[in-house]
Amino acid sequence: MEFDTIAAISTALGEGAIGIVRLSGDDAILIADQLYKGKEPLSQVPSHTIVYGHIIDLASNERVEEAMVSVMRAPKTFTREDVVEINCHGGLLSVNRVLKLALRHGARLAEPGEFTKRAFLNGRIDLSQAEGVIDLIRAKTDRAMNVALNQVDGRLSKKLATLRQALLETVAHVEVNIDYPEYDAEVMTHRILQEKAIFVIEEIDQLLGTAAQGKILREGISTVIIGRPNVGKSSLLNSLVHENKAIVTDVAGTTRDIIEEYVNVKGIPLRLVDTAGIRETEDLVERIGVERSREVLKKADLILLVLNYGEELSPEDEALFEAVEKMNVIVIVNKTDIEKKIDLEKVKSLARSNPLVTTSLLHDEGVEQLEQAIADLFFEGEIEGADVTYVSNTRHIALLEQAKATIQDAVAAIEMDVPIDLIQIDVTRTWELLGEIIGDSVQESLIDQLFSQFCLGK
Amino acid sequence: MEFDTIAAISTALGEGAIGIVRLSGDDAILIADQLYKGKEPLSQVPSHTIVYGHIIDLASNERVEEAMVSVMRAPKTFTREDVVEINCHGGLLSVNRVLKLALRHGARLAEPGEFTKRAFLNGRIDLSQAEGVIDLIRAKTDRAMNVALNQVDGRLSKKLATLRQALLETVAHVEVNIDYPEYDAEVMTHRILQEKAIFVIEEIDQLLGTAAQGKILREGISTVIIGRPNVGKSSLLNSLVHENKAIVTDVAGTTRDIIEEYVNVKGIPLRLVDTAGIRETEDLVERIGVERSREVLKKADLILLVLNYGEELSPEDEALFEAVEKMNVIVIVNKTDIEKKIDLEKVKSLARSNPLVTTSLLHDEGVEQLEQAIADLFFEGEIEGADVTYVSNTRHIALLEQAKATIQDAVAAIEMDVPIDLIQIDVTRTWELLGEIIGDSVQESLIDQLFSQFCLGK
Repeated sequence: MEFDTIAAISTALGEGAIGIVRLSGDDAILIADQLYKGKEPLSQVPSHTIVYGHIIDLASNERVEEAMVSVMRAPKTFTREDVVEINCHGGLLSVNRVLKLALRHGARLAEPGEFTKRAFLNGRIDLSQAEGVIDLIRAKTDRAMNVALNQVDGRLSKKLATLRQALLETVAHVEVNIDYPEYDAEVMTHRILQEKAIFVIEEIDQLLGTAAQGKILREGISTVIIGRPNVGKSSLLNSLVHENKAIVTDVAGTTRDIIEEYVNVKGIPLRLVDTAGIRETEDLVERIGVERSREVLKKADLILLVLNYGEELSPEDEALFEAVEKMNVIVIVNKTDIEKKIDLEKVKSLARSNPLVTTSLLHDEGVEQLEQAIADLFFEGEIEGADVTYVSNTRHIALLEQAKATIQDAVAAIEMDVPIDLIQIDVTRTWELLGEIIGDSVQESLIDQLFSQFCLGK
Repeated sequence: MEFDTIAAISTALGEGAIGIVRLSGDDAILIADQLYKGKEPLSQVPSHTIVYGHIIDLASNERVEEAMVSVMRAPKTFTREDVVEINCHGGLLSVNRVLKLALRHGARLAEPGEFTKRAFLNGRIDLSQAEGVIDLIRAKTDRAMNVALNQVDGRLSKKLATLRQALLETVAHVEVNIDYPEYDAEVMTHRILQEKAIFVIEEIDQLLGTAAQGKILREGISTVIIGRPNVGKSSLLNSLVHENKAIVTDVAGTTRDIIEEYVNVKGIPLRLVDTAGIRETEDLVERIGVERSREVLKKADLILLVLNYGEELSPEDEALFEAVEKMNVIVIVNKTDIEKKIDLEKVKSLARSNPLVTTSLLHDEGVEQLEQAIADLFFEGEIEGADVTYVSNTRHIALLEQAKATIQDAVAAIEMDVPIDLIQIDVTRTWELLGEIIGDSVQESLIDQLFSQFCLGK
């Protein structure tokens, strides 16, 4: 395919040592040459080499930057197009100026994800791999990263390819049956259809079985800490943050209003919501008002409800229990270092089946138990290793569920002896739905593949 | 010089398309080879080429990342050492994992600025060029960037070299005079000494003449907006921010307590202090209390004092005028769109010689005049073009001032017919002081301190 030439800043915004402006497209080298001055023009340098030079504004004849420029010619590039990467000193302004020059000389500002999109459109990767690339960038824990990397490496794609192949074979059988009824393969076809359909359902079930965990690994557990003032919410926050160095804070682009912090709890990314609120006032509920706080709670996957060991339960405490009814709650009784005044039996009855942990955050006690409680709540037993193909993407999950429903319809139809050419519709649809995950389900290709496989040759 | 091998993340922290882990040192390629798996080992690839491969954790045999790896062999590199840059998918976690692997295989975590420090220690750049690199990264406007880039390109260094050469020649003359008194060159030496010294003083004066503006371009004008509630401080802030798109906000590393925004006003970076305070409460003075507010004011280069056109001057207004006496103040009478109640004559007398601008921020009126007033206050006439060598660094300014004082002493001594070998001491000292700017004859501790200001990975 042919596209125009796009350009964008490819490093995170902020002050860094190196900032990269990336160009991709037929004119990438041509455009880059108009802002580059080095020993020789970029059009003359061999592919996949790096040259030193200056970025020049021809209009004012000013030097804009010192740069190392990478030239990578198609097709062995990220996009399968000609790619130029201009590595400059990483100031925000600096990369912005270089980008502006590239745009002035004919590049178009890339849309978000457009480089990866081209890698997909140009056939270097499929859709689920492309989606894995995003997840890889956003991963908050090693485990989440492994899930994403497996996806980028095409593990999910391969699994789906197997399933689609199975479906395709059944469709081929049906075709044979329809086109050459004299073969009388109907009974045989029924059996094969059922067998393959059940295999596909099982495999989809297995994939969907990883979805809940996959989604958590990918998106994190949205967690809210609540409790009356002075129970130790702030200490809890600091303790979670402190214990888990692999934390992601102050990410550029974080808005100032809602500050979130990611904490890595046993490989699970915990997304702590509104930590600014806690840090500032130690009093989330009062600060944001009842309405807003209920809204925050509603969106949370997990509530950490903190109580004070050294105080009697108050009506406010009980109101908090009420507010989080039916949610995933872990009850934390903090300050076991001071004299006990709380009625633990009552706390237990309020907590019902929710886990209860006692801590003395002051003395760093109970944090390990709390983290284990969080892990247990979301991952039964051990979190599985890298050999599981996780489905983590909501789009994939939805398509898998549709595919499962459709192929189940087919199985039901087989059992009801529905004519095979009708069942074929469901099977084909399942094939398409699974294909949508990897971005491949054009009707045309289905036909092509069908006949090439069967080599009927007539 | 020989050093160990260092590694660091060289892109800004945050989610980006590309993240770079950089290694530099004798073992850079050796270490990188232990975590890289591609077509051939990095030790086999030619210098200044880019290869595709995977980053592998040998311990667990896990793929950690997909990567493009640049191999650059000494001496044509940023540090003049072997450099390997691992470009990976730009997630925070991803680059962290790659960095950790590099450290595990024998690299040492680089200190902030250590790459640039090596470029300096290995003689690729001098100290003022290295300092220009920081300025380049931190530059907030195009003009500031030009100043920094000229410094990186060695313009200041060249100028200083000329001056030092002149001084050296006089020292040589003096030496001749002392060592071979039979030449009787004393009169001659006196004359040359005086001539050269005056030339050096003039040149230093010219450089120092750019210092005030250079410093502003480099560091920005620290600006505080003050005024009673409801005069339009928040609107002024938004208006300045809105009008100047090239704004730098949300920079990673910005602390949450003190939020600053940079606004580009006619090429001058305006650093708006405590904008969070204004945004949140529209009432800086009350919010932070009188003590703290005076402190903030004291550090400001510019005060924007906002009054309400539609209200009579209050005692609080007059108190504000008093608080900012003797400072750079621009008085803004806002809300000319409503009925006038303010006594403009009185405002003028309170403002004294400070500029006075009337605005209707609601209708976007007067902002241009305000920006012009700001520019006029700090830059008389036009801001000069790129052909001026600006001195912008406080350390450089201090050294230039010392050098000037020392060479002036020499001139005075010449006039008083002080023996030439005594004068020589001053001349040599001047030569040394100018040398300190480019890092020739500076102490190690100073060098360490200078580079510690850099960001990691540079």
